[in-house]
Amino acid sequence: MDIAAVVDGVRKRQPRALARAISAVEDGTDAVRDLMQAVAPHAGHAHVIGLTGSPGVGKSTTTSALISHYRGLDLNVAVLACDPTSPFSGGAILGDRVRMQDHFLDPGVYIRSMASRGHLGGLSATTPQAARLLDAAGFDIILIETVGVGQSEVEVAAAADTTVVLLAPGMGDGIQATKAGILEVGDVFVVNKADRDGAHETVRELRHALSLAADVRTRPADPDEWTQPILLTVASTGQGIAELADALATHRQWLTTTEPGRARASLRAAAELEAVVLATLRARARALRADPRFAGLAAEVAGGSRDAYSAAEVLLSERD
Amino acid sequence: MDIAAVVDGVRKRQPRALARAISAVEDGTDAVRDLMQAVAPHAGHAHVIGLTGSPGVGKSTTTSALISHYRGLDLNVAVLACDPTSPFSGGAILGDRVRMQDHFLDPGVYIRSMASRGHLGGLSATTPQAARLLDAAGFDIILIETVGVGQSEVEVAAAADTTVVLLAPGMGDGIQATKAGILEVGDVFVVNKADRDGAHETVRELRHALSLAADVRTRPADPDEWTQPILLTVASTGQGIAELADALATHRQWLTTTEPGRARASLRAAAELEAVVLATLRARARALRADPRFAGLAAEVAGGSRDAYSAAEVLLSERD
Repeated sequence: MDIAAVVDGVRKRQPRALARAISAVEDGTDAVRDLMQAVAPHAGHAHVIGLTGSPGVGKSTTTSALISHYRGLDLNVAVLACDPTSPFSGGAILGDRVRMQDHFLDPGVYIRSMASRGHLGGLSATTPQAARLLDAAGFDIILIETVGVGQSEVEVAAAADTTVVLLAPGMGDGIQATKAGILEVGDVFVVNKADRDGAHETVRELRHALSLAADVRTRPADPDEWTQPILLTVASTGQGIAELADALATHRQWLTTTEPGRARASLRAAAELEAVVLATLRARARALRADPRFAGLAAEVAGGSRDAYSAAEVLLSERD
Repeated sequence: MDIAAVVDGVRKRQPRALARAISAVEDGTDAVRDLMQAVAPHAGHAHVIGLTGSPGVGKSTTTSALISHYRGLDLNVAVLACDPTSPFSGGAILGDRVRMQDHFLDPGVYIRSMASRGHLGGLSATTPQAARLLDAAGFDIILIETVGVGQSEVEVAAAADTTVVLLAPGMGDGIQATKAGILEVGDVFVVNKADRDGAHETVRELRHALSLAADVRTRPADPDEWTQPILLTVASTGQGIAELADALATHRQWLTTTEPGRARASLRAAAELEAVVLATLRARARALRADPRFAGLAAEVAGGSRDAYSAAEVLLSERD
C-alpha cells in the first residue's frame, strides 16, 4: 500500500481511497500503523455521533433524517454502519433501499458498512480508527450506527463523542433495554415513532429509570454535569430532527467547555487506546493458533486431561 | 478459596458451591486455574446445547419447555442465561417469572445468569468454562441461552456441542438474521410460534437461504456431513419439543460417530482454548490501564499528536 497516495486520497475524500484505508483498518494489516500515524494530525475536527438501539426502533431512518438535516447546512457527513441488519450495511428491505438512494448518490455523503461480524470484539478497535480516518478526511459529522444489544452499545460509546440511544413506543424491550446498561451510555435519548400510541408512556418510563440511576450516584450533584435529554421524533417525517441536532451540538459543546465534559472525553480516549491494545493482543492470540502445539493442547482440553487455563499458559509462556 | 471444598460441593451439585465456582470463573480470579484443573477430569459427559435468536422469538419459553422435557426423562439440567433480557437472568416480565417458578424450585435444575455485560468479549471465555464446571458437576444437559445479535451467536457456537437457532414468523428480521452469519452457527433451526401466520413462509425462506449457503461450499458433498434440520415448535404448549430433543440427540451422536462430526468437535475445542488465551491477554490489557504512562498516551491519541497503534506499542513493549 502506497501510504502517501492513500493519505492524499483520504484527505481529498476520494471514495476509493477511503474504502482502501478503512479496509486496511478492518484487516489490521501492518500498514495500518503508518496510515494512522500519517492521518492523526489531521483529525480532531469532526463530531462523532453514535446511534444505538434495538432493531425496529428506526435507527436507519433517523440516520437518514440526520444526514438530510446536516446536508441542508452544507456539512459533509460520513456514516459507519456497524449494524448488519441496517439498510446502510446492505441488509435493507427494498423500501429502505429506495429511501437511502438519495444519500448514496450525494458526493457530500460517504457511507461505509463495517465488517465487525465474526471477529470477536472487532467493532471496538476498528470503528474508532475508521472514524478517525473519516475525521482526518474532513467530514464534519460522522454517524456510527450500531445495533444496541450486547456489547456494541458500550463499544459505540468508546467510539463516539456523543451517543444517542433510540427507543420506540410499544417495543416491549424499552425498559428491558434501559435496565441492561443502555442508561449509562446514552448522552441523548430519543423516543422515535412518537406519533404512535404509548410514546409519552415510554418517555415517562425512561425518565423514571434515568432518575433512579441518577439517585444512585454517590457524588454530590455538579451543576456542570450533563443532564440526558429525552427527545421525541418521527424520523420518517423529519419531525424533531432539528431539535435532536441541537441537542447533539449542545452535548458536543459541553464536552469541551466543562470539567465533567473534558473528563468524559478523556475516558473515551482511554477506551479507544485500550481497544487498540486489546486488538494488538488479540492478533497475538490468533497467531498462537498456528503454534504446532495448539491442536494437541485443544484436544487435551476437550478430553479433560488438561484445563484451558494451563493450556493457554503453555502457549503464552514461550512467546513472551 | 478452599479449592478442594468447592470442588467437592460442585461434584455434589450444591447450589452454593456451583455459584462460588462460576463466580470465580467470571471474575477470573487466580483460583480459577486450580479449580478448572481439579474439575477437568470429571467433565465430558454433558450435552451442552446453545440456544440463540433475536429477542422475542421465544428462547426462554423454549428453554423452559426443554427443561420440562428433560426433567420428564429424569435428567439433570443446568441453564446458563447469557441473555440479559431473559427471564432466567432476572430480566423477566411478571408472567414469565411465574412460569419459570417451577424450575427454580426443582433441585434437578440449576439456573445461573452469566454477567457478561460490560466485559468486552467476556462471554466467550467464561461461558465454556462455566459449562465445563456444570458438566463436571454431573448435569446431563446444559442449556446456554444467548441473545442472537452481534457476536454472541459465534461465541455460543464455541461453547456448545449443539447450537439451536430460533426464529419466529413475522419477526421481519428473520431472514435479515440469517444473512448475518446465523446460518453458519446453527446446527438445528427452530421456527417457534409455529401456530402463527407466516410460519411456513419463514421455513421456506430459511430453507432457501440454507440451500444457497450449501451451494457456496466448494468441497464435494460428504454423505456424513450434517444436514441442518428445520423444526416447527409452539414452545408455550410444548408442541414439537420432543422432536427438537430428538434432533439434538441425533446431532450429538453425529459429533462423536462421524469424521465431519469429530472435526466440528475439534474446532469447538480450539475455539474454547483460543477464548481462554484471549481472556488471559485481555487481563494483561486491563492491567496496562494502571500503567503510569497510560493517561498521557491516551491524551496524545485524543489530541492527534500520536496514533493509537504506536501508543499501544509503547505500552506493550516494556511489559513483554
